[in-house]
Amino acid sequence: MARIFNFSAGPAVLPLPVLEQARSEMLDFQGSGMSIMEMSHRGKTYDAVIKGAEAGLRRLMNISGEYSVLFLPGGASQQFAMIPLNLLRPGGSADYVNTGSWSGKAIKEAKIVGKVNVVWDGKDENYLRAPEAAELSFSPDASYVHICSNETIGGIRFREYPRTPAPLVADMSSDIMSRAIDVDGFGLIYAGAQKNLGPSGLAVVILRKEQAERVPDTVNLFFRYATHMKEPSLYNTPNTWAVYILKLIAEWTEREGGLPAMQKRNEEKAALLYRELDSDAFWKPCAAKKSRSIMNVTWRLGGEELETRFVKEAREAGMDGLKGHRSVGGIRASIYNAFPVEGVEALVEFMKEFKRKNG
Amino acid sequence: MARIFNFSAGPAVLPLPVLEQARSEMLDFQGSGMSIMEMSHRGKTYDAVIKGAEAGLRRLMNISGEYSVLFLPGGASQQFAMIPLNLLRPGGSADYVNTGSWSGKAIKEAKIVGKVNVVWDGKDENYLRAPEAAELSFSPDASYVHICSNETIGGIRFREYPRTPAPLVADMSSDIMSRAIDVDGFGLIYAGAQKNLGPSGLAVVILRKEQAERVPDTVNLFFRYATHMKEPSLYNTPNTWAVYILKLIAEWTEREGGLPAMQKRNEEKAALLYRELDSDAFWKPCAAKKSRSIMNVTWRLGGEELETRFVKEAREAGMDGLKGHRSVGGIRASIYNAFPVEGVEALVEFMKEFKRKNG
Repeated sequence: MARIFNFSAGPAVLPLPVLEQARSEMLDFQGSGMSIMEMSHRGKTYDAVIKGAEAGLRRLMNISGEYSVLFLPGGASQQFAMIPLNLLRPGGSADYVNTGSWSGKAIKEAKIVGKVNVVWDGKDENYLRAPEAAELSFSPDASYVHICSNETIGGIRFREYPRTPAPLVADMSSDIMSRAIDVDGFGLIYAGAQKNLGPSGLAVVILRKEQAERVPDTVNLFFRYATHMKEPSLYNTPNTWAVYILKLIAEWTEREGGLPAMQKRNEEKAALLYRELDSDAFWKPCAAKKSRSIMNVTWRLGGEELETRFVKEAREAGMDGLKGHRSVGGIRASIYNAFPVEGVEALVEFMKEFKRKNG
Repeated sequence: MARIFNFSAGPAVLPLPVLEQARSEMLDFQGSGMSIMEMSHRGKTYDAVIKGAEAGLRRLMNISGEYSVLFLPGGASQQFAMIPLNLLRPGGSADYVNTGSWSGKAIKEAKIVGKVNVVWDGKDENYLRAPEAAELSFSPDASYVHICSNETIGGIRFREYPRTPAPLVADMSSDIMSRAIDVDGFGLIYAGAQKNLGPSGLAVVILRKEQAERVPDTVNLFFRYATHMKEPSLYNTPNTWAVYILKLIAEWTEREGGLPAMQKRNEEKAALLYRELDSDAFWKPCAAKKSRSIMNVTWRLGGEELETRFVKEAREAGMDGLKGHRSVGGIRASIYNAFPVEGVEALVEFMKEFKRKNG
């Protein structure tokens, strides 16, 4: 076995103890005589798994009983459609903040459902910063305000979340559980699982229950949150494997000290990288300082040839996934919760050496 | 390790060699230094997996280039909504054959989208048989005709598929790949993966490409087949783990002799059980003989007390999942492709002994 340092933007590195446990339980889950993938989602054994996954998220994120926690198919992309279908009042509108590619996709789906006000757009600055509170003004009649808390492509995030008159809806796919937040400040939080929560093919939706109440009759049952709230996440067969891995990850996160510990570790990991990036003009960090993500760190080098060499030599040194998103190029280091500090230290060492040889 | 005989209706038993391979590759997939769950769905390594999964299905089911093969989120329940959204012409209608609970759910979602003609309904016969060809007459203007090829709850199937003027759409969740069929006879075939294809959280959709062409602008991008056909199954992050397991299952199915071998084995397994059920009035098989499923075999005993004891004693003898669906009660043995003939033989032996003691 030769595990490498995996900087993939997602699906992304998982905690090694989680993988080891999944491996050890593969043929016989807790004496059931079958794998977790082979059992009824309505049996007692699996019921404890899905309830345990929900309870773990509730403890870690301090989610009150006023919120439902749902495990739904697909990832954030499916939610881009489900959110306006459920939350956009007929004849009403929604406010969207456009901070990059993921916000843009959410806007595209919402426009099919109803009226969308793009209340801020970072396009002219290449989506390299999030707006300040003073730059945002919201529509008085909006059904909700939508943000993407962390954009993986630019490598930017909202350091603080805007205060909004309408319920705040946040795509937290790439930074959920990376820090302690106040869930009560949101109407709905959603995330594709494949960064901090588990494998792909699963969306976690945390919504204030009243958000699910006023859905038009024209929306298919399967796409209504209310349908999935009645028998929580068991209206249909959920992605039983992904929910199981999510439960193991929640348990691992708690053992590691919960979200305060994750936040501290994530800030330290990011600081190590940004310190090197700020130390020499050889590196050209992309994101505006105030908006720098602690999950996805992006930078350029002096030319594409040098960037290609950087990615190639890093891979040879056991560090994979550092190529920037195909739409923007450059370098991107994704350092989610499960990414070890040793990997960041190794990258910084590699960077110093690369700079010495090529600077 | 103590594997039991797992008669679960789904999620269901998987081939042991598939589980063993998944276990052995858990920490390091083919020298990549990471698990299959931790890698980009757009990288070269994963590309070979998803393309291999599609190619495997195409070889096994003999699917021509006129059809797309898509890996979509959710299972059949999500397709119940997506099918009318994509295929129901505005102002048009669709014909549905109602053979049980799964057909019923498909009908409920279709009615939200447009006009539905229920052309046959098995309700008065407790959904214990499929219709004969002579009983079916179709609407001249229907956009499509929908059937469920195998109903898991009643334990019935279409032995032969109806000839229809409009494209035939079939929910094959519980019997896909259980026998050789002529895909060209269908406009669209779909299946939740969690019986013969893999774990839950994945739907396979096989559709004649022209079926995806005429979708109203009001349908969200994510719910259009055309969206997922452009960059096949990579519009968003697919359920990478489930697609990987599906690929391993397709390879296993080919090694075992493909669909002709599966069909022969499945018919033999079912015949063993039906032979015992027909041998003594102690057993009361549910399904009409002509419609008997070879995937889900259902029967009653003389009273619920006896049925409860049967299920309990079978479990103690290492056979789990034999309780009938909660909506109908009784006994159900689900014997999908991966269920071994030895398990059926063990069940028949157990039945003979149970009959001797309680008959």
